[in-house]
Amino acid sequence: MDKIAIVGAGMVGEATAQIIARQELCRELMLIDVLGDLAQGKALDIWQAAVESGSDTWVYGGGRAALLEDSELVVVSAGVPRKPGQSRQDVLVTNLPIIDGIMRDIGEHAPDAVVLVVSNPVDVLTYRAWQLSERSRSRVFGQAGVLDTARMKCFIAEETGFSARDISALVMGGHGDSMVPLMRYCTVGSVPLSHFLTPDQIRRIVERTRKGGGEILGLKTHSSAYDAPGVAIAQMVDAIANGRNRILPAVAILEGEYGRSDIAMGVPCMLGDEGLERVIELELNEEERTMFDASADQVARDIEEMKAIVAKL
Amino acid sequence: MDKIAIVGAGMVGEATAQIIARQELCRELMLIDVLGDLAQGKALDIWQAAVESGSDTWVYGGGRAALLEDSELVVVSAGVPRKPGQSRQDVLVTNLPIIDGIMRDIGEHAPDAVVLVVSNPVDVLTYRAWQLSERSRSRVFGQAGVLDTARMKCFIAEETGFSARDISALVMGGHGDSMVPLMRYCTVGSVPLSHFLTPDQIRRIVERTRKGGGEILGLKTHSSAYDAPGVAIAQMVDAIANGRNRILPAVAILEGEYGRSDIAMGVPCMLGDEGLERVIELELNEEERTMFDASADQVARDIEEMKAIVAKL
Amino acid sequence: MDKIAIVGAGMVGEATAQIIARQELCRELMLIDVLGDLAQGKALDIWQAAVESGSDTWVYGGGRAALLEDSELVVVSAGVPRKPGQSRQDVLVTNLPIIDGIMRDIGEHAPDAVVLVVSNPVDVLTYRAWQLSERSRSRVFGQAGVLDTARMKCFIAEETGFSARDISALVMGGHGDSMVPLMRYCTVGSVPLSHFLTPDQIRRIVERTRKGGGEILGLKTHSSAYDAPGVAIAQMVDAIANGRNRILPAVAILEGEYGRSDIAMGVPCMLGDEGLERVIELELNEEERTMFDASADQVARDIEEMKAIVAKL
Amino acid sequence: MDKIAIVGAGMVGEATAQIIARQELCRELMLIDVLGDLAQGKALDIWQAAVESGSDTWVYGGGRAALLEDSELVVVSAGVPRKPGQSRQDVLVTNLPIIDGIMRDIGEHAPDAVVLVVSNPVDVLTYRAWQLSERSRSRVFGQAGVLDTARMKCFIAEETGFSARDISALVMGGHGDSMVPLMRYCTVGSVPLSHFLTPDQIRRIVERTRKGGGEILGLKTHSSAYDAPGVAIAQMVDAIANGRNRILPAVAILEGEYGRSDIAMGVPCMLGDEGLERVIELELNEEERTMFDASADQVARDIEEMKAIVAKL
Repeated sequence: MDKIAIVGAGMVGEATAQIIARQELCRELMLIDVLGDLAQGKALDIWQAAVESGSDTWVYGGGRAALLEDSELVVVSAGVPRKPGQSRQDVLVTNLPIIDGIMRDIGEHAPDAVVLVVSNPVDVLTYRAWQLSERSRSRVFGQAGVLDTARMKCFIAEETGFSARDISALVMGGHGDSMVPLMRYCTVGSVPLSHFLTPDQIRRIVERTRKGGGEILGLKTHSSAYDAPGVAIAQMVDAIANGRNRILPAVAILEGEYGRSDIAMGVPCMLGDEGLERVIELELNEEERTMFDASADQVARDIEEMKAIVAKL
Repeated sequence: MDKIAIVGAGMVGEATAQIIARQELCRELMLIDVLGDLAQGKALDIWQAAVESGSDTWVYGGGRAALLEDSELVVVSAGVPRKPGQSRQDVLVTNLPIIDGIMRDIGEHAPDAVVLVVSNPVDVLTYRAWQLSERSRSRVFGQAGVLDTARMKCFIAEETGFSARDISALVMGGHGDSMVPLMRYCTVGSVPLSHFLTPDQIRRIVERTRKGGGEILGLKTHSSAYDAPGVAIAQMVDAIANGRNRILPAVAILEGEYGRSDIAMGVPCMLGDEGLERVIELELNEEERTMFDASADQVARDIEEMKAIVAKL
Repeated sequence: MDKIAIVGAGMVGEATAQIIARQELCRELMLIDVLGDLAQGKALDIWQAAVESGSDTWVYGGGRAALLEDSELVVVSAGVPRKPGQSRQDVLVTNLPIIDGIMRDIGEHAPDAVVLVVSNPVDVLTYRAWQLSERSRSRVFGQAGVLDTARMKCFIAEETGFSARDISALVMGGHGDSMVPLMRYCTVGSVPLSHFLTPDQIRRIVERTRKGGGEILGLKTHSSAYDAPGVAIAQMVDAIANGRNRILPAVAILEGEYGRSDIAMGVPCMLGDEGLERVIELELNEEERTMFDASADQVARDIEEMKAIVAKL
Repeated sequence: MDKIAIVGAGMVGEATAQIIARQELCRELMLIDVLGDLAQGKALDIWQAAVESGSDTWVYGGGRAALLEDSELVVVSAGVPRKPGQSRQDVLVTNLPIIDGIMRDIGEHAPDAVVLVVSNPVDVLTYRAWQLSERSRSRVFGQAGVLDTARMKCFIAEETGFSARDISALVMGGHGDSMVPLMRYCTVGSVPLSHFLTPDQIRRIVERTRKGGGEILGLKTHSSAYDAPGVAIAQMVDAIANGRNRILPAVAILEGEYGRSDIAMGVPCMLGDEGLERVIELELNEEERTMFDASADQVARDIEEMKAIVAKL
């Protein structure tokens, strides 16, 4: 790609920028933040890191919305994390206007860009971004499951001792408690995971994956994960920038798939030149279906709540 | 690894050397051939290619067996291909003394090296190499299935349009007609292949994979494939050199697995620091079991034939 | 780039294709040869190798000129090498119509492509290709010095023991005896080479580089080098495909630089999106100037000879 | 390498760990910090990032010194940065006991490890670490100039438009005002920089490089650079882990080179299997000599000051 922009120079935006620059996924990478100087300082550091790694990607940073101009893909990583004592709704009240402002800027300066939302809560904010943008769902979607999958691969590698390169896993639904693991589909070197692990071991891996973000936050106490999220986002960007037609989980607007519509849900998708080119509809067994429906119901409620907040803004 | 040697500077040995040097899988790479000057000339070319790619692997070539000294891994790719009019037995009569000589050299100069046999017919020659070397099976085995799997991934990518990066496949048994495809285990992005393709499409892919070597030979007429074989061999070397514990198909000496012993067969294995560290024993369904047994029976006959030839030498 | 074509599926064309596919320098790579089946067979092998390396580049092959369609860059590696007993003129008489035919095909099917000539004799054939194509010199040029530089880096690495990654060298003029080494400009980790080596050592490196192709041919006897040439060509393609603005030696049509015009000579150039974007004109000292002029005079004579042959065709 | 440890899980230590894991420079990477949970949390995040990038490096974290056991290389990145209002001496008073404690731990748990100091002030602390460790200078040294060089390459790329891949630069001395740029040795594609830029342009690049750290701190206000420092440190680790014999600037204990002894100074060195295998002694011109001496005198004073502080501890 010629130009990619990342809006939000927090730790996740920065980690993503560092990986994208290193992998030369675009010629020009723009890091944008309301704190323009901060974005510029981080961009400088990332550029210097990229150059020392042999990358020719130019990395810039700043605060003006006009810097979005000509971007073919925009990663939206802005927003404020939940602070102790804040309710979920408090966060939404804070972050919604931020997303709204960014989508307005994108509409004005990069109307044809693919928009990849990674701000939290990612399903509601992906829905909101899509709602505002009048883009088809193929041009606005979110990251959730690639990160969960990466974590699950780690835990499987640890438990089995096999190379992470050979582990393939798939999750649906949201992060955390609403994650829908599809362990039937999980393989090591094409061999089903159940060949190597007991149901109990698999259950523990699922549980640890569900709580994967919390485990890191609990240890770091002052900051969530950002290294693995950065790589997860860059994987999606790579699939699009290089037109790979990869199957990766994404937060997609459903249009009847899995029996749902008008909702943003984590589902397996094909990512290629046009963005999210296809939602892959798997047959779920009863247990998976129950989990999926619970997850979808929760997201539906969150979207309603969001609409209520918007109405009051 | 500090040092890897490749014995046999034909096209497959050369292609393998080029990939190993480029990927810096060792500090020093030695290409050995009875045509010492040829090996040296190819080594020079490969070294210059590696350096221009940023690799610091030193590549040398020559004809003396003593050049094996200190090798931690030896790829055996020597031997003569079957010529028109030659029977299978004719080839064995030619290649057996070659393998015997190489194993003697390895025994003398690199007694602790892992030996990876890629000369054809690979199952019989792997068996012979193991028989001669008094190594445990973990230190002498062959390449077969990684190449078949690579080809199958290509044909699946072509038929589905998905990124080859997301395709996972597994084959057992020998090359060609005796290949045992395990299509139940084949996935795209963790999703079973049958979600995307009809049984007929899958059958065509299996058939094309079976005949994958012949397709290329038929088109090139004067030479078999070597680019993909070289990469396949390098994958196995990488798994060992970097201690990855990867699950890859290999030609292993069976010791009761799959109901067979005293035979070399293509089966899924774990490759790591110690070489072939584990044979993975899958449950086969009836169709797979029938194919596997036919394949094993053929190899058993070939080994008997080989022993008869050896007796006469 | 979306599409690159390589015309000529000999060993150099094939080696180049293998590297370009592995490095994903384009989405689609087309290998074309008058022996269409051969090209297709090699393309299949290269594609399977690429996929096993994680590349998503599609590789195709065939014999029809129409396969050039939509190529953004065409590598011309067709032509017959000099056989024992053949005069230089004999080779030209054979290869000129081949180049003429290819340039006609390119004119018809890929009129906007950048043309990179690597067939020998590369300076005369680059001139001829430019003459026929009515392209600006930025869109048609040849490879020569990147390969010589790669070889020189190897010999310097060997003599000094330093990492090839830190060695920087520059040559001008033609291959072999007409090569103009610029040893003043040669550095290891930014430190001039003369800090580490005596004039005698440097002289030996220059001599070995001059005879670098012959050394390999002498050892292999039946075939010239192709691994390092393939990587050298791929370096130039990478610089263009990724718009790097790299300084690399190229066979360029001079328009007054170095006091010469209407001639194709190996000189340092900047390669970027538009192809050969700039000829870099260095100040030469007397010794370098003498060598350069001798080299240029020889090329001028070769071009005259070529024109005479063309007149008779 | 089998095991590398990083002591100090601040931003620089973390950024370094992330690059080392991604590049698979070791089998096992240990991140150690007095805040053991923090180190563990960051290690988890980095491990998950590495796995998603295809790396098989195991990343662990914790707080106990015993985690150093079996490390072949230890990066020391612990210590507190200078806070507003603090004098240089205040920082030393804080950081000296930290370094002393770490060197004691290394002496006990990893007595044969190569020690790479990156804590600031790096020259004084490298000297102190060497003094305490009774290692030869080849086993304890610091990072300074690789980062400055990376920055200088960026600014040259920006000013000339050429690929950073072709830019080679060299600095000596300390960071910042005491940096000794060697612009005579700076090249683009082997061509001296003065061919492309005016003395004024070069002077501006030198100035910007000198203030490179400050420029980023000024923009970010709450944090220094860490992305490029991480890559710079990883370059040095790579040279050692892969025995490359690279020429890189390092903070070395001088033993008569450049007319100095018993001092730690940034000078060009050869890094390979044994660590800092050689100090490269360049001839300096008068201007460079003056700058170098001023830089060395300053470091000598700082070391005296350090010794005075130590005497009082």
